[in-house]
Amino acid sequence: MPSNVVSLEDHKSQHTDASAIDVMQALVSAGMADVNTTILSRMDSPVALIPELAGHLIASGGKRLRPMLTLASAQLIGYEGNKHIGLATAVEFIHTATLLHDDVVDESKLRRGKKPANLIWGNQATVLVGDFLFSRAFELMVESDSLRVLKILSNTSAVITEGEVLQLTTAKDLSTSEDKYLQVITAKTAVLFAAACEVAGVVAGDKPEVSSALDAYGRYLGIAFQLVDDALDYSSARATMGKDVGDDFREGKITLPVILAYRRGSDDERAFWKRTMQQSKQADGDLEAAIALLAKHGTLNDTIERARHYGAMAKDALAIFKDCEAKQAMLGIVDFCITRSY
Amino acid sequence: MPSNVVSLEDHKSQHTDASAIDVMQALVSAGMADVNTTILSRMDSPVALIPELAGHLIASGGKRLRPMLTLASAQLIGYEGNKHIGLATAVEFIHTATLLHDDVVDESKLRRGKKPANLIWGNQATVLVGDFLFSRAFELMVESDSLRVLKILSNTSAVITEGEVLQLTTAKDLSTSEDKYLQVITAKTAVLFAAACEVAGVVAGDKPEVSSALDAYGRYLGIAFQLVDDALDYSSARATMGKDVGDDFREGKITLPVILAYRRGSDDERAFWKRTMQQSKQADGDLEAAIALLAKHGTLNDTIERARHYGAMAKDALAIFKDCEAKQAMLGIVDFCITRSY
Repeated sequence: MPSNVVSLEDHKSQHTDASAIDVMQALVSAGMADVNTTILSRMDSPVALIPELAGHLIASGGKRLRPMLTLASAQLIGYEGNKHIGLATAVEFIHTATLLHDDVVDESKLRRGKKPANLIWGNQATVLVGDFLFSRAFELMVESDSLRVLKILSNTSAVITEGEVLQLTTAKDLSTSEDKYLQVITAKTAVLFAAACEVAGVVAGDKPEVSSALDAYGRYLGIAFQLVDDALDYSSARATMGKDVGDDFREGKITLPVILAYRRGSDDERAFWKRTMQQSKQADGDLEAAIALLAKHGTLNDTIERARHYGAMAKDALAIFKDCEAKQAMLGIVDFCITRSY
Repeated sequence: MPSNVVSLEDHKSQHTDASAIDVMQALVSAGMADVNTTILSRMDSPVALIPELAGHLIASGGKRLRPMLTLASAQLIGYEGNKHIGLATAVEFIHTATLLHDDVVDESKLRRGKKPANLIWGNQATVLVGDFLFSRAFELMVESDSLRVLKILSNTSAVITEGEVLQLTTAKDLSTSEDKYLQVITAKTAVLFAAACEVAGVVAGDKPEVSSALDAYGRYLGIAFQLVDDALDYSSARATMGKDVGDDFREGKITLPVILAYRRGSDDERAFWKRTMQQSKQADGDLEAAIALLAKHGTLNDTIERARHYGAMAKDALAIFKDCEAKQAMLGIVDFCITRSY
């Protein structure tokens, strides 16, 4: 690790709550087994390329945080039906489709350090399998027989793509405001977290204040999650773990750590950011230099502080629910999302 | 026009019914004005790139055959509500999104002769705006308040993408059977024609045999439409009109005219098809040589004959409806789809 690279380890001092993810996984393990079965059966197709390509991403086994949130929300409110299984699967499919479509790149900016789906199967297949998963997500949603759920999730899907396009148009724009940045991460990440939680309340037929509390919890958690994600992309601790860092830097994606460092920087520093992120002229050592500037201005820690703020709001949104195992797990996952290093 | 290039003009001798499209347009003009308004309002977004890119395709003004079919079907069965407007718009959005995603290309095969959306805005924006239109289509479908409509259209959307992936996996495969080819064009084209018609019956609350007749009409019409499309891609008449020909040839897309010519060809001819379409080794004059081989074996005319067969089935599907202006327009559009030269 270069000596000028700051570690994010210190932000974990308050709660190093990696076990919270285990608590959550234990809470929803029965439901997640059903979700996994549904994922496998619904991504299947006589057209062999589809399960092959979809499986590449789905089997790569992320944390499946979003479907877990649907299941935990259902438990929190004591829902006893089984419609949440299909909805949790739909949410994961929407997320996976979004990831696949993110992998479609313009010729000019192939990512380094990754082997995205499009490099293995080509852009066309990647787009189409993403479309397939979107369609399957809608089929699953329709099976919930709830028009309100359909309204929420179809709107979510529109807002996500609006957020992604907005992100595309703010790329390389160092004058992006914190407000616009928040708009982007709310749209591209937080609304799906919100919907994942809210739909559990809706299929359970719960009172509006219940659905709206779940929506708020998911939304604030999602914002916190993305803030931390954007900090981790410059985290040397993560690099040490063999995970990728610097994707956002290479792509000229303007995230909060950079927005703050640019604003607080000297003229020379601003020239550095302009050259590397606006004009995409990057040389060896630039990523390390960028990370050093973020450290100098403390913007990674400030980004995590912002995440803590939204995390606190997420926890407060759960105040209307009585204490129970599910509530504890959902509170714990907030700390996990903020203190995670992966 | 090179002398070895066959004209498709002769297939138009039976009915040169270009006026059928005018009859249809006149029939649904009031409804189409509402559809156009809905298209404009629903493709709008505070993110300016979205209406800009979507408008590029939508304003380029295809025939809007699919939404016209929804409106004509609604008239055929005497539907007096207004839910068909949103559904016709949804159908057009699904179609447009599919076109946008078709424009996403792999680096290795940029199309010639066209300026697809991805060349102007890049692959990423093209994918995302397609996703946006898909999402807006689902929102419009949800507003129909009909779970049956939602089931039909979400399934349609999944089948379309399955068809597109299947087409991708059969690309460059000269041993593709006519049956597999029919599977591809049914999935990628005919099911949306079918759904466009069927949903009018469903929102009108009509008897299952009505919806199922509309579904059959649309499905057979869609197959005929795509067969003719695939013949026109090798049509010199179309080239004379300044339209593109040879896209399928250049992309190695195996369509019926080629399937039949390959099967009927000599060893030398098969070697030609293998070199040009399987190994993508194409030189100047190859397209003209390909068209000459199709003429030699009469496969363009045979493809149109196949289209006539499905066109006849489409017409017969309407037999249960009493004669009226809408029925005449829908019968006429079958002839138009078969005899069109664009």
